[in-house]
Amino acid sequence: MAKHIDKIKELLNKLDIDAILIKSKTVKKYLDTLTGSGIHLLITKNKSYAILDGRYLEEVKNKEKDFEIIENTPAKSKKSHFYIINKILVQNNLNSLGVEAGGYSIGDYEKLKKYSFNVSYIEEDLHKVRIIKDEYEIDIIKEACEITDDIFSNVLKHIKVGVSEKEINAWIHYYSLMAGANKMSFDVIVSSGPRTALPHGRPTDRKINSNEPIMIDFGIEYKNYQSDMTRTVFIGEPSEEMKNIYEVVKRAQKAGAEAIKKGALAKDIDKISRDIIVKAGYGEYYNHGLGHGIGIGDGAEYPYLNQTSDVVLKDNMIMSCEPGIYVPNLGGVRIEDDVVIRNGEGIPLNKTTKEMIILEG
Amino acid sequence: MAKHIDKIKELLNKLDIDAILIKSKTVKKYLDTLTGSGIHLLITKNKSYAILDGRYLEEVKNKEKDFEIIENTPAKSKKSHFYIINKILVQNNLNSLGVEAGGYSIGDYEKLKKYSFNVSYIEEDLHKVRIIKDEYEIDIIKEACEITDDIFSNVLKHIKVGVSEKEINAWIHYYSLMAGANKMSFDVIVSSGPRTALPHGRPTDRKINSNEPIMIDFGIEYKNYQSDMTRTVFIGEPSEEMKNIYEVVKRAQKAGAEAIKKGALAKDIDKISRDIIVKAGYGEYYNHGLGHGIGIGDGAEYPYLNQTSDVVLKDNMIMSCEPGIYVPNLGGVRIEDDVVIRNGEGIPLNKTTKEMIILEG
Repeated sequence: MAKHIDKIKELLNKLDIDAILIKSKTVKKYLDTLTGSGIHLLITKNKSYAILDGRYLEEVKNKEKDFEIIENTPAKSKKSHFYIINKILVQNNLNSLGVEAGGYSIGDYEKLKKYSFNVSYIEEDLHKVRIIKDEYEIDIIKEACEITDDIFSNVLKHIKVGVSEKEINAWIHYYSLMAGANKMSFDVIVSSGPRTALPHGRPTDRKINSNEPIMIDFGIEYKNYQSDMTRTVFIGEPSEEMKNIYEVVKRAQKAGAEAIKKGALAKDIDKISRDIIVKAGYGEYYNHGLGHGIGIGDGAEYPYLNQTSDVVLKDNMIMSCEPGIYVPNLGGVRIEDDVVIRNGEGIPLNKTTKEMIILEG
Repeated sequence: MAKHIDKIKELLNKLDIDAILIKSKTVKKYLDTLTGSGIHLLITKNKSYAILDGRYLEEVKNKEKDFEIIENTPAKSKKSHFYIINKILVQNNLNSLGVEAGGYSIGDYEKLKKYSFNVSYIEEDLHKVRIIKDEYEIDIIKEACEITDDIFSNVLKHIKVGVSEKEINAWIHYYSLMAGANKMSFDVIVSSGPRTALPHGRPTDRKINSNEPIMIDFGIEYKNYQSDMTRTVFIGEPSEEMKNIYEVVKRAQKAGAEAIKKGALAKDIDKISRDIIVKAGYGEYYNHGLGHGIGIGDGAEYPYLNQTSDVVLKDNMIMSCEPGIYVPNLGGVRIEDDVVIRNGEGIPLNKTTKEMIILEG
C-alpha cells in the first residue's frame, strides 16, 4: 500500500515541512502498519521510520515494509521516543516537523517544541488525504456494508417485547464479531420508546414495549474500514404521529441520498434534505448535520454534510446520509445509509429496506 | 457525587489557576456527567459549567446537577465553544485556564491560547486525583471483577478445537454485554498457539488447536469503572516447556500480588515479581511493566508498577498485577488479577483460578 504513504508524503511539499510525526490509530490503519499506542511513525521525503518499544518487535516482523524499524524501550534505554526522533531529524538535517494534532497530546507537543527544530501541528490536512477513496477501499467498504445488512437481519430476530436495549446491543456485537468484524466502528446506539428522542442514546436496561420505536445505529470495522447504518423499527403498529415522522424522515433521507453527486456542494445537499423536515414542521427537532465521511476515521472523516460545509463532492467519496427527527417525550426516527459517488452519481451501499419495519412481538 | 468535583477543584489551588477545562470521557465519567464529545466542562472555584450543543439538551435534563448548562450549537450560533468559554471567563474575571491535555487536541490548545487569558495544560495532576478510590468506587470495581469471573467461565464453554480466536472474542462480547457491561474496557486480546508470544495479540481467524496456549485478556466497563483480567488456558496437555513457563509466571504473579501493600514502592514490587522470571532464565522474554492502576481511565490510571515507578502505595489504590513470558515462535503466558489495598494488604479481586486450566477439546 505504498500509494497511501505517498499521499502523506505529498503533504511535505504542500506544507513545506521536512517530516511528519504520526501516532493515531486512524492514520496507522491508513498506512497499514501496526496500530499500538507505543508506535510512532516518522515520515520524511526519502525514508520513513517506525519507532517502537520492545513489545511490538515480534509482531512487526511481517509488517511495516515501508518503514525502517527503530526499537526504543524507554524503561531500558532511559531515552524517550522524542529523544530518538530528534536524533533522526538532526542526523538527516531535517529542521521542520509537522506533528499530528489528533495523535499527540498537548503535553507531548510542548515537550517536542523544546527540541531545536521547528514544530507545527497538522490537523485537517492529514485527514483530507483520505477523502477520495481508491478502488481497494471502496471494495472493502462495500463489503463492510453488505455484512452490516446481514448482521442487522440477524439481530432483528432477537427484538421482542421484554428484551432490553442492552441485550439487543449484545446480539449486535455477537453477530458483528462472528461475521469477521474487528470491532464496532463506534459505541453502538440502541434506544427505545421515548429514549429514541436522544440522537445518541446508548443502550440501557430498558425493556422493549410494543408500538414504540426502536432505534439502532451501528457499524463494523472490517479490514480497517468502517460501515455505519441506522434503522428505526417497531414491534406492532406505531402511533399515527410516529408513522408520519417516519415517512418524513424517509423522504428526507431519500432526497439527501439523491442529491449526493459529483459537483454538488455539501451544504446544499444538507438543505435539500433538511427542507423536507422543516416544511413538515419538525425543523426544530432535527439538531445535527446530514452526514459525514465514511472510511477509517473515528469522527475525523471527510466530507461532512451539514449547514456550513463548503466541500464540493467528487467521485469516489463515501459519506453517510442520516437525517432524523427527535421529539422529546414522544420519540425519534433516524434512517441512515452510506453513499458512494461513482461516475458522478450517489449510490447507497446498504440494502436493508428503508420502508417501515414492523416486527411481531 | 459532589465529592469528585471537589477533588478536581482542589487542583485550582494546587496549580494556582482560576479554571479547568475538561473534555475527556475519562474525567467526565469520574464526574458522572454525560460523556459526549460535544460537551465541555468548565470548573471554577464557585461555579461549574457544561457547555454543550443542542444534541445533548434532552439527555442532560436529569444529569449534571453540579453544572450550569450552557447550550451552544455552533452551526446555529456561529460561535465556537471556545468563544463561549472565553466569555464566561471574562465575565467572571477569571484569568488563568488549565486545559486537560489528554482531552483537547493540539489544535484546540493553540486556538485557546489566542484568547487573552493565560492557558496552561494539565496532564498527570488531573489523573492522579483518581489514584485513591472511595468506598463507592471500590464496591463497583469489586462487582465488575466478580462479573468478569462469571463471563470468563461462560466463555470457557465455547473454547474447543477448531473455534477461531475471533469467535471466542464474539462470545466474550456477548456474555459481557448480556451481564450488564456498558462496553469492554479495552480491545479484547485473544491469541492462540505461537501468537501468544505477542503480548497484545488481537483476535484473528486462526483456529484453536489442541496442546497449545490460548491467551485471553479482557475487562468490562461497568457503571463507568473497569475490570481487567488475563488467563492463559490450554486444550489438552501443553508441552513441558510451556508448563514450566506457566509455573514461572504463576509464581511471579503470586509474588507480585503479595508484595502489593501499603508503603511499598512500585518499582520494588515490579522487581520482586520480575526477579522470579529473570532467575528462571526468561527475563529477556518479559518486556513490559508489572501492572497499572484500575479505575475509569483508558491507559491513564495510576499507580503504575514498573521498573522506574517511584509511587509509594497507599490504602484504597487498585492496580493490576500481570507478569508474562513471551517466547517467539513458541508462545506466551500472562496471568493477571486486579488487586486492591485494604487495611495495608493487597487483596486480589478476581476469583478465577490461577492454576493451569486444561480444557477438553
